[in-house]
Amino acid sequence: MTNFSLQRLRLFVYNNLHNDDYQTTFSRCVNYFLIFLIVGNVAAVILESITEVYIAYRNYFDLFEITSIVIFSAEYFLRFWSVAENDPTDSAWSQRWKWAKSGGAIIDLIAILPAYFNFFVHIDLRVLRILRLLRLLKLTRYFVSLQILLRVIKREKGSFQAVIFILVIMIVMAASGIYVVENKAQPEAFSSIPKAMWWAVVTLTTVGYGDVTPVTSMGKFLGALITILGVGIAALPAGILASGLANELNQRNQKLEQEFRELLQAQGNKVLHNQAELEKLRQRVGLPKEQMHEIIVQLMREHLLEEQDKKQGKKHYCPYCGENLAE
Amino acid sequence: MTNFSLQRLRLFVYNNLHNDDYQTTFSRCVNYFLIFLIVGNVAAVILESITEVYIAYRNYFDLFEITSIVIFSAEYFLRFWSVAENDPTDSAWSQRWKWAKSGGAIIDLIAILPAYFNFFVHIDLRVLRILRLLRLLKLTRYFVSLQILLRVIKREKGSFQAVIFILVIMIVMAASGIYVVENKAQPEAFSSIPKAMWWAVVTLTTVGYGDVTPVTSMGKFLGALITILGVGIAALPAGILASGLANELNQRNQKLEQEFRELLQAQGNKVLHNQAELEKLRQRVGLPKEQMHEIIVQLMREHLLEEQDKKQGKKHYCPYCGENLAE
Amino acid sequence: MTNFSLQRLRLFVYNNLHNDDYQTTFSRCVNYFLIFLIVGNVAAVILESITEVYIAYRNYFDLFEITSIVIFSAEYFLRFWSVAENDPTDSAWSQRWKWAKSGGAIIDLIAILPAYFNFFVHIDLRVLRILRLLRLLKLTRYFVSLQILLRVIKREKGSFQAVIFILVIMIVMAASGIYVVENKAQPEAFSSIPKAMWWAVVTLTTVGYGDVTPVTSMGKFLGALITILGVGIAALPAGILASGLANELNQRNQKLEQEFRELLQAQGNKVLHNQAELEKLRQRVGLPKEQMHEIIVQLMREHLLEEQDKKQGKKHYCPYCGENLAE
Amino acid sequence: MTNFSLQRLRLFVYNNLHNDDYQTTFSRCVNYFLIFLIVGNVAAVILESITEVYIAYRNYFDLFEITSIVIFSAEYFLRFWSVAENDPTDSAWSQRWKWAKSGGAIIDLIAILPAYFNFFVHIDLRVLRILRLLRLLKLTRYFVSLQILLRVIKREKGSFQAVIFILVIMIVMAASGIYVVENKAQPEAFSSIPKAMWWAVVTLTTVGYGDVTPVTSMGKFLGALITILGVGIAALPAGILASGLANELNQRNQKLEQEFRELLQAQGNKVLHNQAELEKLRQRVGLPKEQMHEIIVQLMREHLLEEQDKKQGKKHYCPYCGENLAE
Repeated sequence: MTNFSLQRLRLFVYNNLHNDDYQTTFSRCVNYFLIFLIVGNVAAVILESITEVYIAYRNYFDLFEITSIVIFSAEYFLRFWSVAENDPTDSAWSQRWKWAKSGGAIIDLIAILPAYFNFFVHIDLRVLRILRLLRLLKLTRYFVSLQILLRVIKREKGSFQAVIFILVIMIVMAASGIYVVENKAQPEAFSSIPKAMWWAVVTLTTVGYGDVTPVTSMGKFLGALITILGVGIAALPAGILASGLANELNQRNQKLEQEFRELLQAQGNKVLHNQAELEKLRQRVGLPKEQMHEIIVQLMREHLLEEQDKKQGKKHYCPYCGENLAE
Repeated sequence: MTNFSLQRLRLFVYNNLHNDDYQTTFSRCVNYFLIFLIVGNVAAVILESITEVYIAYRNYFDLFEITSIVIFSAEYFLRFWSVAENDPTDSAWSQRWKWAKSGGAIIDLIAILPAYFNFFVHIDLRVLRILRLLRLLKLTRYFVSLQILLRVIKREKGSFQAVIFILVIMIVMAASGIYVVENKAQPEAFSSIPKAMWWAVVTLTTVGYGDVTPVTSMGKFLGALITILGVGIAALPAGILASGLANELNQRNQKLEQEFRELLQAQGNKVLHNQAELEKLRQRVGLPKEQMHEIIVQLMREHLLEEQDKKQGKKHYCPYCGENLAE
Repeated sequence: MTNFSLQRLRLFVYNNLHNDDYQTTFSRCVNYFLIFLIVGNVAAVILESITEVYIAYRNYFDLFEITSIVIFSAEYFLRFWSVAENDPTDSAWSQRWKWAKSGGAIIDLIAILPAYFNFFVHIDLRVLRILRLLRLLKLTRYFVSLQILLRVIKREKGSFQAVIFILVIMIVMAASGIYVVENKAQPEAFSSIPKAMWWAVVTLTTVGYGDVTPVTSMGKFLGALITILGVGIAALPAGILASGLANELNQRNQKLEQEFRELLQAQGNKVLHNQAELEKLRQRVGLPKEQMHEIIVQLMREHLLEEQDKKQGKKHYCPYCGENLAE
Repeated sequence: MTNFSLQRLRLFVYNNLHNDDYQTTFSRCVNYFLIFLIVGNVAAVILESITEVYIAYRNYFDLFEITSIVIFSAEYFLRFWSVAENDPTDSAWSQRWKWAKSGGAIIDLIAILPAYFNFFVHIDLRVLRILRLLRLLKLTRYFVSLQILLRVIKREKGSFQAVIFILVIMIVMAASGIYVVENKAQPEAFSSIPKAMWWAVVTLTTVGYGDVTPVTSMGKFLGALITILGVGIAALPAGILASGLANELNQRNQKLEQEFRELLQAQGNKVLHNQAELEKLRQRVGLPKEQMHEIIVQLMREHLLEEQDKKQGKKHYCPYCGENLAE
């Protein structure tokens, strides 16, 4: 194999594994195969945990695991090798090192590493299986919605830390209070503050299994008070996440709207049939396909209505100053 | 019957079943009768499930079911036949085919199909009864709020998929973790990951029946950690739905406000007594009657206050530039 | 007693019971006494339900109840009589009739009526006591926050109806599904759809007592599915109420802000010491005292900062057009 | 020691304990040591509650407690003494008195007072230990996120009072209703309204332990009704807190954004390397470090994009009037 054909191969691998702009049937098949393999691995882990199934099909499970490891290792190696095509102005090893330090590469490594470790150190089989679930993280590469969620979690990190910090303080205080009050009546369930914390977590998150409950009047009164005052705190992370998600989607929608309007002014209504252009726009903004479609349809409808209004000479007024905006 | 009188009959049926602008006492009676029949069907399904009631009134229930099937079948046929009146420029069968593919027609078909299937294939009686509950979906035609909800679900489909996808990942991971930790202490309840998933779902949604709970210290610690971190995720769909609903209603309110202002400028204050015009406006915007009323009352009050302010020469300032807007 | 002194008495009663602008030590004492009496009545109902307490202090409870009835009856009669002072241009009986039909008057009537009914029809003692709790509603007159809540509930009535309607549909469907699946395994707990509804309500609201849970694999799978998809719906009314409350308070804050700015321009900084003026403003806008105080303090701080900025010649820019606003 | 060197010592103590602008390695070490001591105290309280641990390491726990008391007392005294350096124009004792009345000083006092009380009055050992948890409150001085939360709670005090007031009314009504219905079937669990309140709190907060549940059909129907209608109310405080927190952070972000833009115009892009200036800005606005970093990065990115757009002569339009803003 000459150096030249090796370079062509490297470019081919790069296009199929790294380049999002390169969309051929083959590259799409590669992606779908890898997604299928990840989902298959998770299904295998779940099925193996059922003893009867594992005993009956042990060989198949082992074969599937070895195949998966080989494929994921090859994928990691090929990504590592071909990423050098990314930027012609940079040296190959510098780019490889940059890629190896990126989040996606570390996830890829975590997905295969435990299996190799197992050769040297003997890990408990059950734990090893669970570690295979980390391969789920590889899906983030393929699903925009997971990327958005991770971005929101990263951006709202400060708020989350604050809320979890407050939640921990509340759990400690609630557990201590109920420990003092209930310790004599239930020396088993509330034998210490760490044990009482189980009750506090189960109550403040409103899960409420009922395996440990206060039984004395004083304990019930304190429990009711803690529940009423604290019930909100446990729901705060969800609130932060929900509003963060809404904000992030909103921003991306606005960005999409703006860029789409510019496209519309530059290329006219025919832009709607330019699927490649729209797909590039979607990837630049970072929105899931379904949502993108909905927004484009609505923007187009508004655009047509506006044009219709203009033809009919309908007037629009500024919501603030009441001036006619149609001029 | 001549062809002409048949056509007149078809128009009559069309007006009463399809045409929302055609509001007579008779058409309203038809609608109320159909709503009543749907609700009656649901009540019958619920009552039949009580063995004593079913045995005692078996004949009445069977009679009611047969009557309902006949009426719903007639309704479907009449809608199918009369929809040809919808658009005089299109052929009758083309319109019928279009209608048959629409959501409302499919719901109507689903509502009667299982009863006919029963003649050919013998379906379990209990399942057949439950399938009758699908007739509830027919109510969406009559209730704007259900339509709004469905629209929001459709529009936020992408977000829902993302959240349910994440929720499934979290359930798998939580179930696997607790399975590893609790499997030895409770080999029955946590015998496999799929069994541990029951605990994970019950905990992450904060339902917390308490039929399966971790008992080891390690299991309780892991359970508490999972609960604290994951409790938010299960509440996300509600958050998305709530904010989506708020957005949708907000948009419709603004549209109503704008169109009402235009009506007010065109027709003056007397528009308030023009019930037909307001009803048409309400249907165009798509708002429930109660909400519409509230908004109109408030808009009218603001309008009157503005007029009063103008007479008194009160000044208004732009919230941004501080300029006098009263000129 | 002459007619004139009767009229003066009526005005005095009117001022103390109806007129919010009339604020003397005596009128405030009357209000506090009535609030105290309502709270006392509720405390009495709660205490009477403890058998030992009721037996020990029966006479005192009966005496307190009779006194309360007399005072509340007198209050109702005096309000009814004195409301004629409200509008000098209207006839006394017309105003009394109008008042008797208002929400506040109906609540006052409901608070005393059951006790009088008891003379004619013998009501179960326990039910009669609970009906006394309706006197709690009399508190709405004195607490702005309760009025705001009722207003929001009234305004969002349409949304609430829609959500409860959807919730009922979901409960019916969930109950029917679990009934079909679990009926054979647990013929007692899931003997009919109405019985299965108890499980559906307890699950969809995430209360999860655990007294009834699915035990079959199919039932657990269906239960998990229903829980994941439906958990959001039950939280929707809270979401609607929360956002409605936030909107209402926001609107009132903006109104307060605007009116306060106008006061500030008209009367200058000394308005802050004009407690009567601020109290009238607060009642006109309808905000609780604590919140009002916070807002005024912040508005004043901003006002002072603006004045300082003006003196220092600091420039402000429009967030939209970037123009200098300081001119 | 001369008076002069005492004054220098006081200034040194003031800078390290009070002055936030004074950031040296030593002052940071003092802060970290105090945070560590607080966390250590909480850990000690939790560990002491485990009987075996307490018996084994009793002497160490006692030593740690005495050391902590000495250090916290010294901290309180030094803060009290050195605060006189705060404002040279005011007398030392006036400033000390002002400080002693401030929230932070009261928290510091509460943290050490119970230990001293123990010399005079003998407090139950368990209660005494729990009171040591109040030392957690001392952390608010070091964590911005706790300060923001406290500020939001203070500002939304009115709303919280209203919601808790409504929640109490709902609990009383729900408890009374279920008491009337279930009292005969379960005379033990629903023997009085106060006892039924335990059920009401556990249900309305959706905790649902399942230790007390309605068993009669009527009780289950009423319970389901109460749950459906009331489930929202308990989640309201969380909603208020979440939206309040979002508002507060939003306001601070906007303030940061505005001040950062002013800095950018005054000092140019090099402001990014001026860590001291940015830290001062962060403290003035009051934002956690992580969030600040995120915002600055985004603002900078937008700033650079704007500059780029200006160079390329790209046009921007006002979202309201459609005018070109680029001029």
